Amino acid sequence: MLIGITQGDSSGVGPEILLKTFRDSELFTDFVAYGDVEALEHYNTLLGYGVPVRPIAHPGDYQAGELNVIDAGLLRREEITPGRISAKSGQAAREYVIAATRAALAGDIAAMVTLPMNKEATQLTDARFTGHTELIAEVCGVQDVTIMLASEHLIVTHVSTHCSLREAIERTKFERVRTIIRMTADAVLRLNPKARIAVAGLNPHAGENGLFGDEEIREIRPAVEWAQSQGLPVEGPLPPDTVFFLAVHKRRYDAVVCMYHDQGHIPLKLLDFEAGVNVALGLPIIRTSVDHGTAFDIAGHGVASTASFVEAVVYALRLAGLAPVSAEEEETDA
Amino acid sequence: MLIGITQGDSSGVGPEILLKTFRDSELFTDFVAYGDVEALEHYNTLLGYGVPVRPIAHPGDYQAGELNVIDAGLLRREEITPGRISAKSGQAAREYVIAATRAALAGDIAAMVTLPMNKEATQLTDARFTGHTELIAEVCGVQDVTIMLASEHLIVTHVSTHCSLREAIERTKFERVRTIIRMTADAVLRLNPKARIAVAGLNPHAGENGLFGDEEIREIRPAVEWAQSQGLPVEGPLPPDTVFFLAVHKRRYDAVVCMYHDQGHIPLKLLDFEAGVNVALGLPIIRTSVDHGTAFDIAGHGVASTASFVEAVVYALRLAGLAPVSAEEEETDA
Repeated sequence: MLIGITQGDSSGVGPEILLKTFRDSELFTDFVAYGDVEALEHYNTLLGYGVPVRPIAHPGDYQAGELNVIDAGLLRREEITPGRISAKSGQAAREYVIAATRAALAGDIAAMVTLPMNKEATQLTDARFTGHTELIAEVCGVQDVTIMLASEHLIVTHVSTHCSLREAIERTKFERVRTIIRMTADAVLRLNPKARIAVAGLNPHAGENGLFGDEEIREIRPAVEWAQSQGLPVEGPLPPDTVFFLAVHKRRYDAVVCMYHDQGHIPLKLLDFEAGVNVALGLPIIRTSVDHGTAFDIAGHGVASTASFVEAVVYALRLAGLAPVSAEEEETDA
Repeated sequence: MLIGITQGDSSGVGPEILLKTFRDSELFTDFVAYGDVEALEHYNTLLGYGVPVRPIAHPGDYQAGELNVIDAGLLRREEITPGRISAKSGQAAREYVIAATRAALAGDIAAMVTLPMNKEATQLTDARFTGHTELIAEVCGVQDVTIMLASEHLIVTHVSTHCSLREAIERTKFERVRTIIRMTADAVLRLNPKARIAVAGLNPHAGENGLFGDEEIREIRPAVEWAQSQGLPVEGPLPPDTVFFLAVHKRRYDAVVCMYHDQGHIPLKLLDFEAGVNVALGLPIIRTSVDHGTAFDIAGHGVASTASFVEAVVYALRLAGLAPVSAEEEETDA
């Protein structure tokens, strides 16, 4: 079964990361790219990669040894402008994602891995566009999605992300906490059937029995108890300043469900500033992505790191049950 | 000039940490202890330390080579019960702190370092007792105090600590933020005249120009600008998930002013779960303390770590201008 990879906005680092990774690694032959052959050939020439690119119409046409591309045919070589915002490449990036999502829904690919889109560029032709994940959710016909962030040392999910801290407190509600715990457990147990999941409190010391806030008592603890009643390996709410120490240094937990953006992002960025992976949860398909943007400032220079992309593919394979051993072991075998 | 050290609650690990450190290190001869000679002799015998203890009436009576103790004369050997809560030792611990604070105010000692009190024990004879730092502040006649937490990798202060996250948002006000920035700068510049201080935002991405909350615009930024107008080396408000990475890994900042408890405690405990130092700010005297409690569960066993205490003494010496070189260098010389 193949993995589908979207090449992202062709003004950004997506196409070169795709080519460079194909050139450098045997790991990535079992995939099809959703993109534009002419855009890839532009970077192939510009950076001298010489990767053999093969347009195909359907994943079933896949042949090993070449970079197989479901060619959208939307961009021409001369339209590619590394580092410059472009309505055409923004629109094309959107089409790759829609095509890959439909293929995943149809079961033609086992999972999709996305390279970065540029929000501003895509909005030039689609004013309704709010984000990569939202677009995929719309194609899938689902609403309740969230992103799991996985780095070398830590996996986190969030009950809320891009809102004020005041609003994050309002969003710390039983239903939402329960949903995020369930989604997190689904994904983490797929990665490791023996995984254990911690749920952080909202307040200092997890509220210290209601002394510093009662969200733990009213909203979080009931959600944890619900999860436990379902047989899920979940503990909490735990003091936020201790739970990451226990997860990272004591290896007591494989993932931490966080209540707000910075609760999870502070430890994650402190431990692993680069090379994390985003895993979309709540979708009927498997989708992972790099944790960086289009990086217009370095696009076309061939210097973009492939680390996050490689990790995103490894996670997609693991979630799809296609990678029983770790990437490191596979590389040792190769 | 001498450092004063309070031995803390005699049912806890304070006395043994004091004795053990004196026995093991040449570093700590220039201090006087505020405590009870009989309590110290109890642990001396119990643990076989054989430290020479010398009661004195005044810091001026100090003689090197022995553990000089300003003897409160409140406890008798047979009253010492390691690990058991005691009204007498709780009350005595309070008296040592009052005596040391007065000595520091009088200029008889250059700084004070406190070993842990037991809140519950002290409250048995003083129902008004709310905490160690509050007691010292009361003796000093000041109100606006805060604790700076210093570990090997990170120094943080907090605009608020032990309150709900909801209340922490309410306390993120210009006057308070300004006070904490000023206190932090005073202390950190004393430790390192070239120090740089970062101020974290409250909201994700530091509010992203008001998109995720406006506390940065209304309260925090004006306080940072005030500090800058005073010539203080302060920057911010910075995104909370980036500022610790910049401080710790890029060494761009020496201290981070945090808006709420977990913002500072999550990175601090992740980096250095043990052996931090508490520095009281806002007092007219220098006072540092260990970052642990009385540890009744291990008191009297001689196994308590002296690491935090040693660091607390080093910080007191540095803040008092008595330690121009680092402790490591001093140890190498010895």
